[in-house]
Amino acid sequence: MAIMANSLPTEGKGIRLILGEPVQKDFFYVYHGNIIHSEGGAQTLYVMEHPFWGRILFLNGTLQFTTRDEFIYHEALVHIPVQAREEGKIKRVLICGGGDFGAARELLKYPDIEEIIIADIDPHVPEIVKEYFPELMPGEDPRLKLLITDAYKLVEDYVKEKKHFDLVIIDSTDPDISPEGKTIELSHSLFSQEFHELLKALAPEGLIVQQAATPFTMKNVLAWTYETFVKVYGQDEVYCYRADIPSFGGDNAYILRAQGETPIEPRRPALEDTKYYTHEVHRASFSIPKFWQEVLK
Amino acid sequence: MAIMANSLPTEGKGIRLILGEPVQKDFFYVYHGNIIHSEGGAQTLYVMEHPFWGRILFLNGTLQFTTRDEFIYHEALVHIPVQAREEGKIKRVLICGGGDFGAARELLKYPDIEEIIIADIDPHVPEIVKEYFPELMPGEDPRLKLLITDAYKLVEDYVKEKKHFDLVIIDSTDPDISPEGKTIELSHSLFSQEFHELLKALAPEGLIVQQAATPFTMKNVLAWTYETFVKVYGQDEVYCYRADIPSFGGDNAYILRAQGETPIEPRRPALEDTKYYTHEVHRASFSIPKFWQEVLK
Repeated sequence: MAIMANSLPTEGKGIRLILGEPVQKDFFYVYHGNIIHSEGGAQTLYVMEHPFWGRILFLNGTLQFTTRDEFIYHEALVHIPVQAREEGKIKRVLICGGGDFGAARELLKYPDIEEIIIADIDPHVPEIVKEYFPELMPGEDPRLKLLITDAYKLVEDYVKEKKHFDLVIIDSTDPDISPEGKTIELSHSLFSQEFHELLKALAPEGLIVQQAATPFTMKNVLAWTYETFVKVYGQDEVYCYRADIPSFGGDNAYILRAQGETPIEPRRPALEDTKYYTHEVHRASFSIPKFWQEVLK
Repeated sequence: MAIMANSLPTEGKGIRLILGEPVQKDFFYVYHGNIIHSEGGAQTLYVMEHPFWGRILFLNGTLQFTTRDEFIYHEALVHIPVQAREEGKIKRVLICGGGDFGAARELLKYPDIEEIIIADIDPHVPEIVKEYFPELMPGEDPRLKLLITDAYKLVEDYVKEKKHFDLVIIDSTDPDISPEGKTIELSHSLFSQEFHELLKALAPEGLIVQQAATPFTMKNVLAWTYETFVKVYGQDEVYCYRADIPSFGGDNAYILRAQGETPIEPRRPALEDTKYYTHEVHRASFSIPKFWQEVLK
């Protein structure tokens, strides 16, 4: 039996997975299950089979999603920005990361979205999802294009070509903000000020949303992401919302840049085809606990 | 090293803790730490020392609280009902369970509350809290009385004596709603229709709040508690709200009976002395995910 652990010894070290015994004591909590697939590459990758969670994908030791609750993460990531604008306003969407297709699956539910590009650096992720997580795969759709590429470089090229998007979703692993300053996560550059300066050029009037980890255990990721957004887009355009993802250990944070009209109010009919999202939940998601507010000061 | 596990093999079996190896695979997730105190009695009781969570109290194998996030559970349990009414409206409060003092600690922050009675069946709980969890203990206060007694019987007596309360808080372990119908939890009777009929007589115009477990893993506790409230108090007086408690694995449900004015709107100034609660969070707490709504239909 393999043992995998979500480790959170101190704030800022992120969630780590350890294979093999003995289990270290300073873990947040630990997932026990059978590893049914593992491989190396740009990122180490494990698929765990678990009686409660279904299947779990781990990247670089971090739980990415489970089949049992990924719908919450993806619905909050996609429907809150999309529903914050009227029908027909969001036509072109870029997903940085998101090679698991979960965000694309939700976006494709909107007939007025015309083009969706996924830019994921790791070719193994879509392959693994096709084989082990078929429920994340949308049906064939000519509006969707998957590019295996570094989103940072793609965005640089797009900016040179003066391309524009209405919505950019940064759906990546958590960044490393460890005390040692080590950078092992490929996603790290997607949290930088330089990247957001590029996005501002790519989506001058667009919405930009970034997942920003679970603040109860990693409040420095929230602080850092929020600070970067405020520097680049200005305080008035930056919002924080949350969604409870049980396998992450509770509320995950999302930072949203929205110009003009407040994103707190939904502006189009809700979809029938959701399991988490409603208009009421949309509005409530922007109310954050006092201990988060203090991080954002 | 002791191993303790939060088990959630199927909905309805609740969270269980297992001591010793091997860890069973069908657990939600597992807490690993050192057991620094254990004892039997009406309920088995363990105190775990954990590098991330601080100290954890387990009753009958179920995690009750951790020193790191108990503030969220207790603030949501207490401040949402109290703030739902104007100053001076809530003077007499009964806590059924709550021998850990956490709810009483929050109630005592309101100078207009005149009397607080804790009725806990297990004498070990307050003793353990005094020794291992001093941060839950309020200072000496003549308004607070602890009774070691079965809350069910106490309420029967109070109803005979025609006593009245403005607020009743049921702060107990989760009930057993296992497929086998086994009842091992002392709290079980506090979720029954008979008990709520008594509470209706005890607090005819009062607020009544009951913690109702984490619906993502135990949605039948939510369904059962809500159904009981609706039967006894009528649909119009029953509300459901939530708070994310990371060590519970996300959102916990609370069922609230409130007559007349809606409890969704806070009606008194928020306290400075909270770490989770704000008026915005108060309002947002009543917006629940679509998959909870479906359980309440």
